[in-house]
Amino acid sequence: MSQAGLFISFEGIDGSGKSTQARALSEHLRDTGREVILTREPGGSPGAEEIRALVLQGEPDRWSAETELLLFTAARRDHLERVVWPALEAGKVVICDRFADSTRMYQGRAGLRAKVDALHELMIGVEPDLTLLIDMDPAQALTRAKARATEEERFEDFGLALQQQMRADFLALAGEFDRRFCVIDGNRPPHDVAQDIRATVKARLT
Amino acid sequence: MSQAGLFISFEGIDGSGKSTQARALSEHLRDTGREVILTREPGGSPGAEEIRALVLQGEPDRWSAETELLLFTAARRDHLERVVWPALEAGKVVICDRFADSTRMYQGRAGLRAKVDALHELMIGVEPDLTLLIDMDPAQALTRAKARATEEERFEDFGLALQQQMRADFLALAGEFDRRFCVIDGNRPPHDVAQDIRATVKARLT
Repeated sequence: MSQAGLFISFEGIDGSGKSTQARALSEHLRDTGREVILTREPGGSPGAEEIRALVLQGEPDRWSAETELLLFTAARRDHLERVVWPALEAGKVVICDRFADSTRMYQGRAGLRAKVDALHELMIGVEPDLTLLIDMDPAQALTRAKARATEEERFEDFGLALQQQMRADFLALAGEFDRRFCVIDGNRPPHDVAQDIRATVKARLT
Repeated sequence: MSQAGLFISFEGIDGSGKSTQARALSEHLRDTGREVILTREPGGSPGAEEIRALVLQGEPDRWSAETELLLFTAARRDHLERVVWPALEAGKVVICDRFADSTRMYQGRAGLRAKVDALHELMIGVEPDLTLLIDMDPAQALTRAKARATEEERFEDFGLALQQQMRADFLALAGEFDRRFCVIDGNRPPHDVAQDIRATVKARLT
């Protein structure tokens, strides 16, 4: 029996639990006999990880928003070519922790949403089949995010007001792309959230 | 007296003498009292040089043509923001060894000319005031280029037939953008070529 590939992205504010849930889903699908590629952006392929490092190292104002957008798009293109597209062609499930919606959010916030969209259409051109937005109370998410301070603080260094705005912006994106987005209530024990996600994905796989 | 900035690019096949002529022109203009920035692409700013190194190191097929185009565009954006635009705003002459026409040529050859143009319009948006194309017999240019084999062989590793095609493509570009291109006959002693270039630039500066 040949199975079609499925491209699933996880989105959400920092600390929403999306990385944990992406990992849990990939383990569950492997247990059911599917071939799964668990990956992430920015990065996900050797070249894209090098571009990621180039963007994130050094001072926060090292690159302009426009240059950063171009570098992240280059990384996405490499990731698609080397990892995502070959896996989908082989019928695998690709689970990606952040994808283009994060660019719409983060680079779009810099006033570049029109450029983000035009660049995506020109050089990327694909969307996930399913985007799972883990929607989470920003105060809780912030507490979690701060608890795991990493060297990549640029992604984490946000106050509560900004987290609230980002949650609202993600929900607005979910409304804009309502055919592929599914909003998951993340304000529950991880096991319950995982069950919800499995049911949603199962409906798409059959 | 306030002087307007002037943005000059040099283009041509490898071995055409453009880097030598760019340097000679910058020295001449400095002697006449102009402030001059001599720069190059890909690269020209600290960030752009890092992107250049990322593109050029490793195997030739390490990046797809599309990813390479995005990386070079990111480098160009950084170079413009950090070096070219500030210098032009300060009234300086910017002399750039290769600019967007080289991308039209090299990435355009990979069947990406339409994408090159759309990406340029979206993220770059500027052209030099004057583009000096050093037109050179491809056989002579190839001999010169081979005589100075560098670690960056990817730019040099071309046979005569390809050099001839590139010469033709550069001349076609000069016809397409005939208001800013000036074709300089490079098949003469460097001193004569330099004189020709000085006269052309002088006409634009007064």
